[in-house]
Amino acid sequence: MMPSSLDALIEALRCLPGVGPKSAQRMAYHLLQRDQRGAARLGRALTHALEVLRHCERCNSFTEEAVCPRCANPRRDASLLCVVEMPADLAMIEQTQAYSGLYYVLMGRLSPLDGIGPRELRLGKLIARATEDGVREVILATNFTNEGEATAHTVAALLSARGVAVTRLSRGVPVGGELEHTDTGTIAQALVERKTV
Amino acid sequence: MMPSSLDALIEALRCLPGVGPKSAQRMAYHLLQRDQRGAARLGRALTHALEVLRHCERCNSFTEEAVCPRCANPRRDASLLCVVEMPADLAMIEQTQAYSGLYYVLMGRLSPLDGIGPRELRLGKLIARATEDGVREVILATNFTNEGEATAHTVAALLSARGVAVTRLSRGVPVGGELEHTDTGTIAQALVERKTV
Repeated sequence: MMPSSLDALIEALRCLPGVGPKSAQRMAYHLLQRDQRGAARLGRALTHALEVLRHCERCNSFTEEAVCPRCANPRRDASLLCVVEMPADLAMIEQTQAYSGLYYVLMGRLSPLDGIGPRELRLGKLIARATEDGVREVILATNFTNEGEATAHTVAALLSARGVAVTRLSRGVPVGGELEHTDTGTIAQALVERKTV
Repeated sequence: MMPSSLDALIEALRCLPGVGPKSAQRMAYHLLQRDQRGAARLGRALTHALEVLRHCERCNSFTEEAVCPRCANPRRDASLLCVVEMPADLAMIEQTQAYSGLYYVLMGRLSPLDGIGPRELRLGKLIARATEDGVREVILATNFTNEGEATAHTVAALLSARGVAVTRLSRGVPVGGELEHTDTGTIAQALVERKTV
């Protein structure tokens, strides 16, 4: 007995990650009853974003132009290429103000269980970008999760085989971290990768 | 350095209940990267729902017609009017198959802290509906939460003052419980044991 347009809206909301039938219903009622302006804005934002957003030809991140402003900036160091999983990771590295090179955003990570292999991640585009003239070093900055590590391994093997110099962010105890509150895996890793002082 | 259309999408997703900046970002990336078809469908569903959905003249629930199919059904008992907070509550009562009367959906509850008083709930529409000829009894089936109880009290006072017979679901429903999450047997029991207030 539910109007079909309401049913369709609840069903459509389930495409959002982590949203099941109950949350979708709650969201639909909230939008229709309490925030029609927000709902209209969301509808327009979705349509507009799908229309104008594409992947940067250089770094693969989202942009509205063919090449994003960061890749087009001549003041960035084009000899360094930092590989991250998502734009949010890129934003974190930018916040450190410790890096002025360029980026390549994978837009995901290898995740065989979710059916995301080298082909789905389109690693060919990364290889083409990383083997361009002028790239001196590729810094792998994928997450230190199982999937991020597996992605780094695969990318490192592909690029090394093509003669590209590849480095990885160092692992260890976080700055400001206390040993007592650091997990044993991290401490073990920091011991193995200890540095001469 | 984020494209404005992506920024606008992330901002727009925050109108969803329980969605903060991080989830909104995650949702936007998921939609753009992994489910563009779902995103397009959601955009269309939102626009369409806002266009065609309205409140039933009789029961105040969402419908695409002036009067919803349930209110227009001559086989329902028009002498009984059951007042619920949300369409989800109505659906639960229908599932008990213990009620064949009509409904009035408040589309909310009194919640002074959120600025929702009798005026915002438009209780005038309920009063007009409940005082129509042919309505023999109004059954209050708001939640047994603090806000639902307060709503029931207010509605009971308003309707009793106008000579309407008002009953409330019995306390078979656990105190502090919400209809949407209560088993149908308990709700059926509460319908049978409804008490005059």
